[in-house]
Amino acid sequence: MKSFASDNYAPVHPLVFEQISEINQDHVKAYGADDVTLNAIELIRITLQDSKCEVNFVFNGTGANITGLQTVMDSWNSVICASTAHINVDEGGAPERLLGVKLLDIPTKDGKLTPELIAPLWIRMGDPHTSQPNVVSITQSTEMGTVYTPSEIKALADIAHKNNSYLHMDGARISNAAASLGVSIADLTSKAGVDIFSFGGTKNGLMGAEAVVLFKPELAKKYPWIRKSSMQLASKHRYLAAQFISLLTNDLWKQNASNANEMAKLLRSKIENNSKVKITQLTQSNAVFAILDPQHTIELQKKHNFYVWNDNTGEVRLMCSWDTTIEDVENFAADINSVCK
Amino acid sequence: MKSFASDNYAPVHPLVFEQISEINQDHVKAYGADDVTLNAIELIRITLQDSKCEVNFVFNGTGANITGLQTVMDSWNSVICASTAHINVDEGGAPERLLGVKLLDIPTKDGKLTPELIAPLWIRMGDPHTSQPNVVSITQSTEMGTVYTPSEIKALADIAHKNNSYLHMDGARISNAAASLGVSIADLTSKAGVDIFSFGGTKNGLMGAEAVVLFKPELAKKYPWIRKSSMQLASKHRYLAAQFISLLTNDLWKQNASNANEMAKLLRSKIENNSKVKITQLTQSNAVFAILDPQHTIELQKKHNFYVWNDNTGEVRLMCSWDTTIEDVENFAADINSVCK
Amino acid sequence: MKSFASDNYAPVHPLVFEQISEINQDHVKAYGADDVTLNAIELIRITLQDSKCEVNFVFNGTGANITGLQTVMDSWNSVICASTAHINVDEGGAPERLLGVKLLDIPTKDGKLTPELIAPLWIRMGDPHTSQPNVVSITQSTEMGTVYTPSEIKALADIAHKNNSYLHMDGARISNAAASLGVSIADLTSKAGVDIFSFGGTKNGLMGAEAVVLFKPELAKKYPWIRKSSMQLASKHRYLAAQFISLLTNDLWKQNASNANEMAKLLRSKIENNSKVKITQLTQSNAVFAILDPQHTIELQKKHNFYVWNDNTGEVRLMCSWDTTIEDVENFAADINSVCK
Amino acid sequence: MKSFASDNYAPVHPLVFEQISEINQDHVKAYGADDVTLNAIELIRITLQDSKCEVNFVFNGTGANITGLQTVMDSWNSVICASTAHINVDEGGAPERLLGVKLLDIPTKDGKLTPELIAPLWIRMGDPHTSQPNVVSITQSTEMGTVYTPSEIKALADIAHKNNSYLHMDGARISNAAASLGVSIADLTSKAGVDIFSFGGTKNGLMGAEAVVLFKPELAKKYPWIRKSSMQLASKHRYLAAQFISLLTNDLWKQNASNANEMAKLLRSKIENNSKVKITQLTQSNAVFAILDPQHTIELQKKHNFYVWNDNTGEVRLMCSWDTTIEDVENFAADINSVCK
Repeated sequence: MKSFASDNYAPVHPLVFEQISEINQDHVKAYGADDVTLNAIELIRITLQDSKCEVNFVFNGTGANITGLQTVMDSWNSVICASTAHINVDEGGAPERLLGVKLLDIPTKDGKLTPELIAPLWIRMGDPHTSQPNVVSITQSTEMGTVYTPSEIKALADIAHKNNSYLHMDGARISNAAASLGVSIADLTSKAGVDIFSFGGTKNGLMGAEAVVLFKPELAKKYPWIRKSSMQLASKHRYLAAQFISLLTNDLWKQNASNANEMAKLLRSKIENNSKVKITQLTQSNAVFAILDPQHTIELQKKHNFYVWNDNTGEVRLMCSWDTTIEDVENFAADINSVCK
Repeated sequence: MKSFASDNYAPVHPLVFEQISEINQDHVKAYGADDVTLNAIELIRITLQDSKCEVNFVFNGTGANITGLQTVMDSWNSVICASTAHINVDEGGAPERLLGVKLLDIPTKDGKLTPELIAPLWIRMGDPHTSQPNVVSITQSTEMGTVYTPSEIKALADIAHKNNSYLHMDGARISNAAASLGVSIADLTSKAGVDIFSFGGTKNGLMGAEAVVLFKPELAKKYPWIRKSSMQLASKHRYLAAQFISLLTNDLWKQNASNANEMAKLLRSKIENNSKVKITQLTQSNAVFAILDPQHTIELQKKHNFYVWNDNTGEVRLMCSWDTTIEDVENFAADINSVCK
Repeated sequence: MKSFASDNYAPVHPLVFEQISEINQDHVKAYGADDVTLNAIELIRITLQDSKCEVNFVFNGTGANITGLQTVMDSWNSVICASTAHINVDEGGAPERLLGVKLLDIPTKDGKLTPELIAPLWIRMGDPHTSQPNVVSITQSTEMGTVYTPSEIKALADIAHKNNSYLHMDGARISNAAASLGVSIADLTSKAGVDIFSFGGTKNGLMGAEAVVLFKPELAKKYPWIRKSSMQLASKHRYLAAQFISLLTNDLWKQNASNANEMAKLLRSKIENNSKVKITQLTQSNAVFAILDPQHTIELQKKHNFYVWNDNTGEVRLMCSWDTTIEDVENFAADINSVCK
Repeated sequence: MKSFASDNYAPVHPLVFEQISEINQDHVKAYGADDVTLNAIELIRITLQDSKCEVNFVFNGTGANITGLQTVMDSWNSVICASTAHINVDEGGAPERLLGVKLLDIPTKDGKLTPELIAPLWIRMGDPHTSQPNVVSITQSTEMGTVYTPSEIKALADIAHKNNSYLHMDGARISNAAASLGVSIADLTSKAGVDIFSFGGTKNGLMGAEAVVLFKPELAKKYPWIRKSSMQLASKHRYLAAQFISLLTNDLWKQNASNANEMAKLLRSKIENNSKVKITQLTQSNAVFAILDPQHTIELQKKHNFYVWNDNTGEVRLMCSWDTTIEDVENFAADINSVCK
């Protein structure tokens, strides 16, 4: 039975397997000096409509975020982010441990930063007694299932740049956002002023691969050392790169993300009229957030896998994947409606 | 002219000089293996009414806080503290850089934590994906000039201990708090459940010396390595220790702190009825917080030295020292009342 | 054409692919809470003949070494290792950066530590002014292609334990050592006194997976936080674990390693009588080390891929893989003998 | 009785006390924004004959070395130093912990690096798999009591600069070296190509103060944050700065150092003809190194304080201070000659 717990509970898409299998021959140079890697980089540059951006592959999302951020941060810098940001609450304190930086986390209603929310954070600039903000980090789509429009991103890039800071995007679910908005990934990144981009693949059908994209090539100068000393440099590197080739071939990224998004919408539509189910967020990507009676949650979890997001409020997260089917949703929704009454 | 900017603008009390001068003879062992240091430790143990606590001297307040916290923290731990805490906003990000930990900072009205405020912070315990709170850190007196009573401290110690966490006290101005409350320093520390204590001296008339007190001796096992590798081990160690001897002889700590406190009260009394001066905090130690018209602040700063605490609200901090005199206060108050009208 | 540059230039063994493909179905819990992972752990415990050891999977060899070492090291500790150790010269300074520790590296003739070489290193124990050695780290097989016998390992474990230190084994090529010696992997680890073991898979036909084995279970208490905050926790974790299942099924590990070892022996036999080829090390695993005339090296590298190991001496490393064939070796040896004369 | 253990066992010179006492009045700005500090900086610039160099005061020698080195090092860099260097064996692993860097330590006979010794260290430059040397660090006078001549320093600066690296000088005993050579401190630093200089004071009669001098002002850009987040920024800063004023007034530095040096020479002259005392190093500053029979050492240590430098060889270090007298030396030498026979 399909889980609604997380998109990383899902298996690998068959086309990804095919791609890896296809390049599984011959000896090639290790550590990224191979043609598969070059091809994957080229595909990403085309996708991002930026022929100059620097692209590097890493193992996982935390690795992408941390090594990307390290290109611009000293330990006395700070990152402005939403309180719900993955870097703030789900990376085991890696930013503090590995970068030594402070996170200035801002409470939000929907997981989204706005220029108004962040403007007051650039204070005491030049004062060595306090951490100096120099990065704004946003997640697209957010941890709350919402999305930033291109113009919202641009506005954040503008205020960051005006304050001599960088805009970082944790794109663990960038495909879901682009598919949801009907725009290209370039529209949400290179064209919107993003400086550092964690291009997520694992949550969208890959086995395990993420890319760090640096849109200002000068940021890449130290990246090889950052990645290696961060233990994020794969020796048999082609197997990471190949996954991205499959993701960006024939719009597999869009097909996978669209399915997950549509299943989330379907799920929402089937439970939102239930008065015992209080939807709490817009359903703009592949997750539905809702408050359930904790007793109902316990009952449902006997049969279905999903996470309680907030123990205090009873809010749960119901997440769809590239392989979630209409039948999966209908079964789950039926059980929800049967239990929550 | 006396400054009202900070108690560390003040000079060293003459008795401290005398003490240092007195021990300035002969060769003695470096790094703390000397009799002056032993005597200072003994005096601190007597003061704190705990003959077993471990006492170590360091150069400055940040050094005391960071090395003390390191005795109990791994990089995946977090510290619960007030947003205004010195460790959060005035140590250049040292906790994040040197300990790798996260600070869970809580907005407060008066710089004081309460059990109610902090209880919700111990969540997701046991989950390696998120930082694990294991220290509650309070400042006594607080950065806002307020104080915790012994029973308030005990309540915080209780909730910390119940959650397998430690209570850390940044006592940069502990003397001001004890003098203000009319209690002993022991009442605020060893007897109130504090586990790790930064015993401040510099802001109360010393030249530069702080002590780290570990009330659970088992925490001290790694301390010598922590201090040395943190660059906080003085070679000519007796000159740090001697300062504490003077501070704890004939209650110099109380005499100095009481004067600073009284001068703050006097200052407040002379300006609080001025309708253009909006006092914002209780005056429980040696600082007066008030909102002034920014134009008035600019005018006053031409002649007097003091800090704007909050650029957005116009709040200023007016701080008295061990050597502030009635005449200093009267002159300053007169100028305030003359400008703010 | 096969490369003789590194065993990580080789592709993934087909049986590994089959195994991954077989488990690529259904939703399973992420981050290691799945049955594939449980099965892989069980297989490793059986292989190591230790039903209690703690097993965790990570992405790469540096990740295994660093997170394993972190279980026992404070920043003021040091690791005793050979100068040629991978942790000393090929991990981008990760031990210093991520653990903050010092490496006490010892020059050796053959990449192997001995009790005599390391005994003098435990000095100034208890002195906070200097790093305190508490780990001996050996590589099996070594970076020089040599191997430790079980009794040599035991002797190092004994001296380490006698000095309150741990024995760490970087087993990136453990299979080659076991196959070469005709012993089990257990003989070289659990039965020989190893405390912390990096069980390598990537260099022996896997796609990218290593396991950290902690033979003293108490060392595992903090491991989940160490791994997560080190960015070494895979979300789709089953794909790492499955690789180890294939490695340990039907002795694939031995089959792969034996072939690589035999091809190295064959290569050596075909060039060692060439007077222009000066073999420099015993060929006990899958690498041949030899000094060539630099001009010959340049000529050979036009057609073949291999590394110069030491620019000063002209020493080269010729490395065989699980898929190296007799024909590959014969062709390469013929070219060597044709050029080097 | 005077100790021959270390120059940091000695008390503070009376003129230093006088200077501190003289500036102990009035409120002045904290953290270095005061006139005493400005005056001290000016005096140092004059002493170093470099009006542009950046000068910052810190608490201790480790603080000076580490914060100075941090201005040019990333965690993947390495420092080339002598095995006996203070940063290598006496700073509790602070370089590794706080900078994350590797130390490439080179065995020497006399504590001195030479171009020949260090030239082979710049290898694999540009390779992210290995630490990249970018600093050569020398100690003047060395930990073995020897000194570098200006031309020896220049030669090391030249090879460092040729390799895009910096020359760092740990000048904990720079005064002893300058006094011994009969040259100025400028001759050994600014004029000899030193880039980063730890100007030592504590071991030469101060209470506790060191200065970090950056001869390339661009290195200073990040220094305020480095110092603050390293816990090396003194609040009552004038008391550090004042010590340097006394050191550099009327050549107190030279007077103190010369006495210590002469007493070491005197001590040597009185024991070097004793056949049971094997002098091991040139006596070019304030220490005499000699091998004694361990039984003699034990006997002597009943009455005199000095360190065994090498437990394996029985080598001891006999160190003189600014306040060592001829009588002290004669008494000690008499006892040595009486015991060692």
